[in-house]
Amino acid sequence: MYIYGKNVAKEKINSNKQIGKIYLAEKFNDQEILGLIKEKGLKYTLVPNKFLDNKIQGLHQGIVIECPDITLFDFNYIKSIKNDRPILVMLDHLEDPHNFGAIIRTCEALGIDGIIIPKDRSVGVNSTVVKTSAGAIYNMPIISVVNLLDTINKLKGLGYWIIGSDMNGENYTKIDYNMPICLIVGNEGHGISNIIKKNVDFMASIPMIGTINSLNASVSCGIILSQIVFGENNVGKWLWTSFSCAT
Amino acid sequence: MYIYGKNVAKEKINSNKQIGKIYLAEKFNDQEILGLIKEKGLKYTLVPNKFLDNKIQGLHQGIVIECPDITLFDFNYIKSIKNDRPILVMLDHLEDPHNFGAIIRTCEALGIDGIIIPKDRSVGVNSTVVKTSAGAIYNMPIISVVNLLDTINKLKGLGYWIIGSDMNGENYTKIDYNMPICLIVGNEGHGISNIIKKNVDFMASIPMIGTINSLNASVSCGIILSQIVFGENNVGKWLWTSFSCAT
Repeated sequence: MYIYGKNVAKEKINSNKQIGKIYLAEKFNDQEILGLIKEKGLKYTLVPNKFLDNKIQGLHQGIVIECPDITLFDFNYIKSIKNDRPILVMLDHLEDPHNFGAIIRTCEALGIDGIIIPKDRSVGVNSTVVKTSAGAIYNMPIISVVNLLDTINKLKGLGYWIIGSDMNGENYTKIDYNMPICLIVGNEGHGISNIIKKNVDFMASIPMIGTINSLNASVSCGIILSQIVFGENNVGKWLWTSFSCAT
Repeated sequence: MYIYGKNVAKEKINSNKQIGKIYLAEKFNDQEILGLIKEKGLKYTLVPNKFLDNKIQGLHQGIVIECPDITLFDFNYIKSIKNDRPILVMLDHLEDPHNFGAIIRTCEALGIDGIIIPKDRSVGVNSTVVKTSAGAIYNMPIISVVNLLDTINKLKGLGYWIIGSDMNGENYTKIDYNMPICLIVGNEGHGISNIIKKNVDFMASIPMIGTINSLNASVSCGIILSQIVFGENNVGKWLWTSFSCAT
């Protein structure tokens, strides 16, 4: 696959993982990235900007890197998580690569332990997802499973509480998240599948004050996750005194 | 301008505001929208799907409506807000129409009183913004101003507290938001301008636990706004017992 954009390229080069050809636009002059390429002893090819435009649909910012597909994990990865109170996110057939990428970025920033996606009928890990994640995907385990319901039952067996997000649930700020959690984010159009709705332990809702009755999937995921991580009486309490701050 | 997509079209038709031509793809069969068009006594033109593909770059879902540009407000609108503890959002030269649209949707859903944007060097209200807002823009006042710093000073004169969002501020959950608030969201690449940073009353930061040092602009805006509206000891306290819930 091809990855592109300065942030993603930086993360990729810094990760010291396998890299194929690096293509730079002839006028590319980001000194930080050029320095990194030199430091790591990597080679690059200078090409006309049009060559990159033809390769990539999105905003490549003058840098495109050929590299192996992202390695996905299976359910065994979850068993290996060492965190006492792990937090997972499960995407119930998300369609928009921008939402998927933004959710990966949020999860990595908030220290989430893994993101579960279904193998079929869902947006996969493509170049747009990697770009929108701002490179966060290289530090975020993506777990691919055949059947979401089956996975939920296995998670329950491991002591996880399954939290859905939906419009007819409890106020999300009133739920006690002080336990191993798997938060389910629904499809952009249809929300969470009915069969999965019936199997959650809690349904969390963000109160809607205006006339719109839903938020963008990545925004609502960010709002509920931040409550799980930083809210009063939550997992976050013991986490965050020692960390730096950012937006 | 052209607006497109089912959600946006529904909001627009329901708003009873001026509408130009309605174009429907020949196979369009959303009964709810067809019913609405009939109920309001509107006319439409059936066209081949390709005709719509040529008009619109994004996913039009078989419906495109020609309508007047969105009406923007000026600073006087802010003086007319009757809310005791108003909340405004100011976008400091945002560039991405998807971020702008998602922020409008979040603001409308959370009952924010208005969004301030600069006249120049900023993403404007285009078809992509309207679509990404899921039609929320029709219920969300957008205030266009010439100079952000000048506007901040005028807001201070009206009793507003100016809150920035940045990586070197106070933990966003520890700030008392119990006052008229204007939250500033920075540019996707550079964050908040230096001159504006010097003029905020508080800088709010979301603690970063992973290696990534920033979130998508619309996600971080959603996280901080939800804390302002729903957090303990905040404005939201008196607001939300009577509202319905959604994600």
